[in-house]
Amino acid sequence: MKNDAITSRDVDFAKWYTDVVRAAKLADYTSVKGCIAIEPNGYAIWEKIQSIMDKKFKELGHVNIQLPLLIPEKLFNKEKELIEGFAPELIWATEVGDKKFDERLAIRSTSETLFCDYYKKHVRSHKDLPKLYNQWCNVFRYEKETRPFLRSREFLWQEGHTVHATEEEAIKETYQMMDVYKWFNHEILAIPSITGIKTEKEKFAGAEFTITNEDLMYNGVCLQDGTSHYFGQKFSKAYDVKFTNKENKEEYAYYTTWGKTTRAIAAIIMVHADDYGLVLPPRIAPKPVVIIPIGESEEVDKLSNEFKDKLISNDIMTYIDDSDKSPGFKFAEAEVNGIPVRIEIGKRDLENNTITIARRDTREKITVDKDVDIVKYVSDLLETIQSDMYNRALEKRESLTFEAHNLEDMEKILNTQPGFIHAMWCGDEACEDRIKEIKGCKSRCIVDEEKIDDKCVCCGKEAKHHVIWGIQY
Amino acid sequence: MKNDAITSRDVDFAKWYTDVVRAAKLADYTSVKGCIAIEPNGYAIWEKIQSIMDKKFKELGHVNIQLPLLIPEKLFNKEKELIEGFAPELIWATEVGDKKFDERLAIRSTSETLFCDYYKKHVRSHKDLPKLYNQWCNVFRYEKETRPFLRSREFLWQEGHTVHATEEEAIKETYQMMDVYKWFNHEILAIPSITGIKTEKEKFAGAEFTITNEDLMYNGVCLQDGTSHYFGQKFSKAYDVKFTNKENKEEYAYYTTWGKTTRAIAAIIMVHADDYGLVLPPRIAPKPVVIIPIGESEEVDKLSNEFKDKLISNDIMTYIDDSDKSPGFKFAEAEVNGIPVRIEIGKRDLENNTITIARRDTREKITVDKDVDIVKYVSDLLETIQSDMYNRALEKRESLTFEAHNLEDMEKILNTQPGFIHAMWCGDEACEDRIKEIKGCKSRCIVDEEKIDDKCVCCGKEAKHHVIWGIQY
Repeated sequence: MKNDAITSRDVDFAKWYTDVVRAAKLADYTSVKGCIAIEPNGYAIWEKIQSIMDKKFKELGHVNIQLPLLIPEKLFNKEKELIEGFAPELIWATEVGDKKFDERLAIRSTSETLFCDYYKKHVRSHKDLPKLYNQWCNVFRYEKETRPFLRSREFLWQEGHTVHATEEEAIKETYQMMDVYKWFNHEILAIPSITGIKTEKEKFAGAEFTITNEDLMYNGVCLQDGTSHYFGQKFSKAYDVKFTNKENKEEYAYYTTWGKTTRAIAAIIMVHADDYGLVLPPRIAPKPVVIIPIGESEEVDKLSNEFKDKLISNDIMTYIDDSDKSPGFKFAEAEVNGIPVRIEIGKRDLENNTITIARRDTREKITVDKDVDIVKYVSDLLETIQSDMYNRALEKRESLTFEAHNLEDMEKILNTQPGFIHAMWCGDEACEDRIKEIKGCKSRCIVDEEKIDDKCVCCGKEAKHHVIWGIQY
Repeated sequence: MKNDAITSRDVDFAKWYTDVVRAAKLADYTSVKGCIAIEPNGYAIWEKIQSIMDKKFKELGHVNIQLPLLIPEKLFNKEKELIEGFAPELIWATEVGDKKFDERLAIRSTSETLFCDYYKKHVRSHKDLPKLYNQWCNVFRYEKETRPFLRSREFLWQEGHTVHATEEEAIKETYQMMDVYKWFNHEILAIPSITGIKTEKEKFAGAEFTITNEDLMYNGVCLQDGTSHYFGQKFSKAYDVKFTNKENKEEYAYYTTWGKTTRAIAAIIMVHADDYGLVLPPRIAPKPVVIIPIGESEEVDKLSNEFKDKLISNDIMTYIDDSDKSPGFKFAEAEVNGIPVRIEIGKRDLENNTITIARRDTREKITVDKDVDIVKYVSDLLETIQSDMYNRALEKRESLTFEAHNLEDMEKILNTQPGFIHAMWCGDEACEDRIKEIKGCKSRCIVDEEKIDDKCVCCGKEAKHHVIWGIQY
């Protein structure tokens, strides 16, 4: 049954997206311009994202810390390159009660400044290194156009900030954390993202280099979803983060940062959801199984509870919808909320010794013997759904992956259907600027793949890099 | 071995407190005035607090949500009583880049305003009720004097905000959540807190009534550590949160809020820590057991790893300190960090088939057979430490609990040693004001205990309430 509250994805993708966000009760607009309320259904996904990523960070030796939200202007001004990038979007606190502050306080848009200021105080010797710190928090960027999860004036993220005694170790960390993001997208979110290096033009302000995780949405638009930056000694010089190395000489520390945001929820929606609502990959679903009892009957209740207990005791989070809504309403609600597996236990079915199991991703209904080994059946099904969702997303990505050998190719592709466009590049920013004139297409990342041409897609000069291009959110 | 970095608790309690915070690396000052960095050791305790409380909240049907940090001035102004309480401490954001906002934005000091604005939009019928929402976030109050964890311009907390269809249900929730806080302090933090009702003068701005959880510190000073408020319909009238009740009539919703903050970490320190550093109750210790191998030996390493694996697989979080510091340094570090149980595995001891187990709370060292059932031994010991710590804190509280029957008693007690002072009260605010003149002593809460006198401790008129008084942080 088509959900009336949701515009068709193929009719109006932007409207479809916000319809899904609202219908699945993931987030809502608030009286605060450009800021959303992340509602319980949406926040539960973020909690799941946090718990899985946090566990992985800790396995790799990272610990969490909490630094202030408000950053004094003078401190912030120390690293010029960073500010120029962020200045127009920075929100400033200037008053308490009715009194003006002596100095404006920037509301955190990113925390390089405070981490460096902290490390300056706490790093003395190579024995203090590495420091592998991460922070889960809220950050602010005053965006003009906002959309739930995708671009919001306030959003949630994690920001890793690490300092190391050697360049080699810091660069290793930069790549390692990108591998974590890629693993997370592939294995947990069922999103076949691509990783590569940002061009000079597109890298993070002040970084030596930026590695990025790029997802392709159902409509062929690209989404940057996780970045890892290597800063070399630039920030530690600006903020005076020095240590005595093994040779007893003073040296500036090597610095990395890496972050992933609530934007990941936008990616889940735009890769997997459909006209019926959200579709959650099982591994990120806060509760991947719902049981819906149909008809009043002791047997129905008994089996519902038995299944629930068995599934939960095997770590498959399951809930029974025993509200007084109609079964049809409950099916629709489970569907719009994207619950991967729905178990329908009906009085009549039980007379035939059967139950019905519905997959959210394919909307298939399967009749199953009521004496099935429910734990094995459901856990196998969840694994199947997870890998099917990944494979469908990969097929979609491949169907929207193109090659361009000249500007004409590029224009033709972008005028038909955006996607990941592979094309060679000379390394000249002027060519990036020229390509951007075509519908705002930008370099997404430089990938470590075989060349597909000898010359630059734009100027025709000798090509240096294999680049993926696309239109971005 | 006495820690030189820590002033003795009996010499200078205030200095001792900040020394412990620094020596145990719980928090540090930052370049942001009045705001601290919660360092990894401190933040890990907060994560543990969060995980235990969040689990309990969810078991009771609550879900998490995330609302904006910035609150438009007009919206904030709707509930006058609330603002008058908070106005002088409110920080305002007024600019983005170099442009002034049309309207100032208050930086969240509490979120009644935004929750009510959200509920206004999402509550229509009694079928939408109750809404049992909670938020984990950062909040801001521009305090003049600040101290780590105790009073900080930015702090972390959880704020529960619930709306209900009936007064009865809302009041039940208010009491239930106070029971959760009390359970948490008694069972997890080993702090024998007292709960009771705040007087009109001391209740939360705008609340019908406030229940509070009051801890007594080692020095006899009181700490408010968790409050639960019942607001009746006052806020829902101000913010227009209405619903259609079962009789199909429009009614304003009944509203409660409840919160607990990073201040709980201050309570842990000031109840349990000593001159050697932090002492963590086992149930709140992120890693309650450390294993310290002494001397290079295959047998030492083998047994260390064997113990660690066994303990971890029984959910007793354990780590091996295999850094290249000296054993003495490692002992001191485990001690200052408050790790409840330290297992020392030495080459020489093993020759005698023994190991050494040290309790942090009593600093007792026990020689144990190396073939001990380590899981049973350690888990029993952790339980013993937990209950011993509670009992010691209870004894301390009782030794600092007094009775006053007149102002002279009150003065004598407060001039000798502050504590929980039981005394009867007529209910008149003038008497509270008069008592406050004695070293700032305030009513902590009205308790449901037998009367100890017929007349008010201050004016001698007929007594209405049994009140606990004290000096507060």
